[in-house]
Amino acid sequence: MSPHPFDAAIALQPRGDGSFAGRTSPAYANFIGPYGGITAAQCLHAVLLHPDRLGEPVAFTVNFAAAVADGDFLLRPRAARTNRSTQHWIVEMVQGEEVVATATALTAVRRPTWGGHEARMPEVPKPQDVARTPRRGVAWLDRYETRFLVGTLPRDWDGSGTAESLSRLWVRDEPPRPLDFPSLAALADVFFPRIWLRRARQTPLGTVSMTVYFHCTAQALAAAGSGWLLAQARGQGFGSGYFDHSGQLWSEAGDLLATTHQVMYYKE
Amino acid sequence: MSPHPFDAAIALQPRGDGSFAGRTSPAYANFIGPYGGITAAQCLHAVLLHPDRLGEPVAFTVNFAAAVADGDFLLRPRAARTNRSTQHWIVEMVQGEEVVATATALTAVRRPTWGGHEARMPEVPKPQDVARTPRRGVAWLDRYETRFLVGTLPRDWDGSGTAESLSRLWVRDEPPRPLDFPSLAALADVFFPRIWLRRARQTPLGTVSMTVYFHCTAQALAAAGSGWLLAQARGQGFGSGYFDHSGQLWSEAGDLLATTHQVMYYKE
Repeated sequence: MSPHPFDAAIALQPRGDGSFAGRTSPAYANFIGPYGGITAAQCLHAVLLHPDRLGEPVAFTVNFAAAVADGDFLLRPRAARTNRSTQHWIVEMVQGEEVVATATALTAVRRPTWGGHEARMPEVPKPQDVARTPRRGVAWLDRYETRFLVGTLPRDWDGSGTAESLSRLWVRDEPPRPLDFPSLAALADVFFPRIWLRRARQTPLGTVSMTVYFHCTAQALAAAGSGWLLAQARGQGFGSGYFDHSGQLWSEAGDLLATTHQVMYYKE
Repeated sequence: MSPHPFDAAIALQPRGDGSFAGRTSPAYANFIGPYGGITAAQCLHAVLLHPDRLGEPVAFTVNFAAAVADGDFLLRPRAARTNRSTQHWIVEMVQGEEVVATATALTAVRRPTWGGHEARMPEVPKPQDVARTPRRGVAWLDRYETRFLVGTLPRDWDGSGTAESLSRLWVRDEPPRPLDFPSLAALADVFFPRIWLRRARQTPLGTVSMTVYFHCTAQALAAAGSGWLLAQARGQGFGSGYFDHSGQLWSEAGDLLATTHQVMYYKE
């Protein structure tokens, strides 16, 4: 049986010096270079595979420094600081002599404490009661099944736009795959650009930085299995070539798994 | 005339090799070590002072890797990637041989484009119509004047707590000081821990990672001058020792200046 396309895409070969060799996957190709979510997952995977790694990811920021070229890359994770139960990582993704992405990650041994998520899952129909949303054009869109509830792509690219850029959708890997931290990091980038809703107009753009906070232990992720996630994102600031959004991802059972924020460049 | 305490606190001496020497400021002391916002401002300032720096900050993430000891530190900003109009920085703050903070920053030459902020300032009374909120106990609290509108500190630390952790306040440097990117980064950390509202109970805690997205040019910041900012934050996920919040900062005139997110560690 061949591996899931996601596992094939994030596969990394240790090089013995703490760095890892990888290769871009045509299965996750975007318009130019790979889907940002798969680059994020590769950076995080390098941290998780590192023999010195302590605990599970809590905070993860990836900066997309340049278009990743199709082909080979190197990942260089480095533990900048190791404490008793937390660790701070700096990661560089390199092609040839050029840095194409940077990342930082906090990993930690998580312990049971008081808890109570404040960002609650909105009341929405179940995934099986929502129609599949066709999304085509680039390879990575076929790697996710999406069922939009709110804020789907503009039907007419006529420049009309909307005042609000909220999107809410059910999403899962296609074919389904048990969730883990790399796949959750990739899913955090699944939203199309918020500016498309605001402007109903296409313009060159790309994510420049994304942060993911993980609100689940590996155990809680395992419990979510290969089920649906409810994903939601809303734009905040738009101006002078950059906009951001803030988002949340819940399991089908309503557990908050991750919160995410990203900033995108846009032209015009 | 002596410099503003903020300028004294973020003062850095270039060492000729691209690194900078600094010193913690008693004026911004917190319970243990310095206020995280001043550490953030120092990291960002090192990038802005670097002779190779291109453009203005757009995205900034700082990771608090360890308690910063009172005394000297070194800042090592490094341009990991320089493009035509954007640049990606990695920063390490070091004391002795130990990394105490890491950061990444995206700086960019920002150009006029379509814009329209979606996160609007809530309707609130003007700062002069709101009573000053006394905040005492550690030095840095005296460096900001705050006027809370919603979600002030619990009056009774009786474990009752609230279901929502929204805080909304007017805030400015004390004494007033014209805004710039380092001071805005410091202000992004001005919120007390959201978990205090949720639990009305004190427990050991600390910020481990904070991200700031700047939605203003240097020109827009200059226009905000030394005026009030409306700052707002709301908790999202709380569990297994970590919680996060999402926040916004507007100028008194209602312009969105920055959005921010952070994740804090807590015990119990």
